[in-house]
Amino acid sequence: VDSDAIAGANQRNGQLTKPPGALGRLEDLAIWYAGWRGNPKPTLEHPQVVIFAGNHGVCAQGVSAFPAEVTAQMVANFEHGGAAINQLSKTFGAKMTVYAMALDTPTADFTTAPAMTEAEVVTALQTGWNAVDPESDLLVAGEMGIGNTTAAAALACALLGGNAADWTGRGTGVDDAGLARKTEAVAKALMLHDTSDPLEALRCVGGRELAGIVGAIAAARTHRIPVILDGFICTSAAAVLFKACDGALDHTVAGHLSAEGAHRRLLKELGKEPLLNFGLRLGEGSGAALAIGILQAAVACHSGMATFAEAGVSDG
Amino acid sequence: VDSDAIAGANQRNGQLTKPPGALGRLEDLAIWYAGWRGNPKPTLEHPQVVIFAGNHGVCAQGVSAFPAEVTAQMVANFEHGGAAINQLSKTFGAKMTVYAMALDTPTADFTTAPAMTEAEVVTALQTGWNAVDPESDLLVAGEMGIGNTTAAAALACALLGGNAADWTGRGTGVDDAGLARKTEAVAKALMLHDTSDPLEALRCVGGRELAGIVGAIAAARTHRIPVILDGFICTSAAAVLFKACDGALDHTVAGHLSAEGAHRRLLKELGKEPLLNFGLRLGEGSGAALAIGILQAAVACHSGMATFAEAGVSDG
Repeated sequence: VDSDAIAGANQRNGQLTKPPGALGRLEDLAIWYAGWRGNPKPTLEHPQVVIFAGNHGVCAQGVSAFPAEVTAQMVANFEHGGAAINQLSKTFGAKMTVYAMALDTPTADFTTAPAMTEAEVVTALQTGWNAVDPESDLLVAGEMGIGNTTAAAALACALLGGNAADWTGRGTGVDDAGLARKTEAVAKALMLHDTSDPLEALRCVGGRELAGIVGAIAAARTHRIPVILDGFICTSAAAVLFKACDGALDHTVAGHLSAEGAHRRLLKELGKEPLLNFGLRLGEGSGAALAIGILQAAVACHSGMATFAEAGVSDG
Repeated sequence: VDSDAIAGANQRNGQLTKPPGALGRLEDLAIWYAGWRGNPKPTLEHPQVVIFAGNHGVCAQGVSAFPAEVTAQMVANFEHGGAAINQLSKTFGAKMTVYAMALDTPTADFTTAPAMTEAEVVTALQTGWNAVDPESDLLVAGEMGIGNTTAAAALACALLGGNAADWTGRGTGVDDAGLARKTEAVAKALMLHDTSDPLEALRCVGGRELAGIVGAIAAARTHRIPVILDGFICTSAAAVLFKACDGALDHTVAGHLSAEGAHRRLLKELGKEPLLNFGLRLGEGSGAALAIGILQAAVACHSGMATFAEAGVSDG
């Protein structure tokens, strides 16, 4: 992060035609964005949304209300422009790309074996890394994958501790019996695997789309591209970086508090206060994409407003 | 409100390619919007922001941290594109118009006389009414007026009861002595005037820009244009309609919870849950304008998403 840009942005913020602090958290967001972009008066014109899709062997344990075919069907829906994330990307002028990650080869059922081989997780990380356009100036990394709230719960539990039940929720809407099966699958996975290393946890209980998100968030850091985190699954992938390296998520903000119950706990562990709270529980990057407009507004005010001197306004 | 459009929108919502309820409050917003627009698959393409500015005789009581000249200076800033509301309007594609309401003739100091004559309040209501473009499909009504948190506090207290201190806050940032003077001015006004009729309360302790907002919200209702309410001052003006007629604010949502403390109490009285909470306390319609993107997103998802049948997605 560029401390000169932060200092310059702070100075500018104090001169804008408004009472001090009157734009509240928008001011903090604009200054944070300026710091990562290395520009005290930044623009936000090229947001990018990348969606990673993967299939999960753990679906064999009956952990989802939807059949696994839905992952590929929804990828087609993304490609044809029919999903929620297409509308949200269009609303906020974001370029959107979708990566179907070996959908015909689901990960292994992690209740009995590691979800991915080393080669598989590295390929998925690379796909995520390469998905980030270095010319974009804001990133949303979303996901689609029937069964992936179970993988995210296992990953969060492996990284952050607690019990399987603390991290397991209803996802797209399983009933009580489905929730019990999910919780049991997570508990089994944590007994089976040595997940003390964050990347090894990702390999053993994660999934390709989660690894894609990890790679994309890391790539964004090297390109100085701020990131809006989505809901429970995205945030659980981000937690891999959080555990691997201090400050690895400083270039990210949490876009939206998911209705998936464990998301609040996960954000608390990561020290992130979500921007929005509309009860979404869809994935696809939808909660993060909804917050693009908030960042656009914050940056537009910061960089577009007149100063007291420019406008000839008395500053109290 | 059009119950056929609501029924049609509800039916459509149940067929979209997402788990039931997965878009949370966005679904409710889209259906509410569809009802007021009379269209089960509405568009939101022409948002309008109108800003009313007025000056206040009660400034003689030392109730603001800024001198009264700032109202006219900020109107010039709005006209030249330099204020926060200009940037927010541009970000979300809203047309913005500004009404300077007799700035050289402040209202009377309402601690000693009614703020406006009947002719003055009627003129201000008409300006607000006529400011609404019948072709717009969303309205934000904002305000600027040094001293107007004092007027808004007096108006809210007159309409909704409680003590002067319950409704009086720091506005643009008065110190403790300024806050004491504001509270005293509000208390004096309520002793002086008979404010049992909501419109008479507006005349005696309101201001021209508050009356402008009242007129605009009422006009929007007749044109079936949904309204996003802004912060404390806008909401206090809206409360005139709330007290005058049951359901008069059903075509409105609260955009943002202001950092001006009494706004929470005011929204609670009106039964409105704010969409956003970023600690803004600027006025100008800024909190409401920030929420335009949320409504655009809600409507875009509702009207743009494919149904399960259209996309060939299994619906669980």
